[in-house]
Order: sequence, then structure tokens, then C-alpha cells
Amino acid sequence: MARKTSLIPKAPVGRILMNCGAKRVSADAIDTFVDVMTDIAEQISEQAVRIAKHSGRKTVQEGDIKLAAK
Amino acid sequence: MARKTSLIPKAPVGRILMNCGAKRVSADAIDTFVDVMTDIAEQISEQAVRIAKHSGRKTVQEGDIKLAAK
Repeated sequence: MARKTSLIPKAPVGRILMNCGAKRVSADAIDTFVDVMTDIAEQISEQAVRIAKHSGRKTVQEGDIKLAAK
Repeated sequence: MARKTSLIPKAPVGRILMNCGAKRVSADAIDTFVDVMTDIAEQISEQAVRIAKHSGRKTVQEGDIKLAAK
């Protein structure tokens, strides 16, 4: 996967996985989860920015994120 | 949205949004993005834990995350 400029951090992603019932998690699983979550964040971000521009705004608003995440 | 025990943090989510071309972002947009990303992380986590258990493992592995994210 391509190198990212900013990543979703490992610790909260690992905590969420443990809170959801994981007994143990491999290091590779955490790294992959970080990549997956970062990809999803980038996809939603790109779409939200497009939606805001399409609406003639420079500010990304709550509704842009909600629509982009659908 | 229900109170979460662990959240994806605001700062990296905001940075990814800016890296994807956002000029400005409202505070509500960041909060909503945190909720959306946390929900997604929980859904993938729950599914990955189910997949690991189904495979007779206590350790969540890389492949479980990949399959859960599909």
C-alpha cells in the first residue's frame, strides 16, 4: 500500500478491537487495520471535499461528511 | 450517537481531511468524522473477532481484518 502522509494511529484502533472482544491481536493485524482505516478516511475526505466544492463552499461541513460516508 | 469507550482521535482525522484538499473544516464536521470513523472501526472489529472465533483462534490476525473490511 502507498506510503501515507498521515495515518490513523495504532493505539485507538487496537483499543477498539479489544473493546469489541478480541482476546489477542497480532502486530500485522494492527498494521493492516491502520491501513484500512486510513484508506477509508481518505476516501470519505476526498468525497466530502468534492461535495463542499460542488456546493460552492470552501468549508467542509458536518453534512458533507455524513453524505460522503453514505 | 452512543458514547464510545474509545474513539478515533480528532487530530489525524482532521489532518487527513486537510491532506485531501479541504481548505477549511467546521468543528462539527470533525466531530462527525470521528463518530463515523469510530463506528466503522467497531463494525470491522466486531466482524474480525467473529471471523477469528469461527476459525477457532483467540488471536485476531491480518487476514481477519482484511476479510472483515470487505
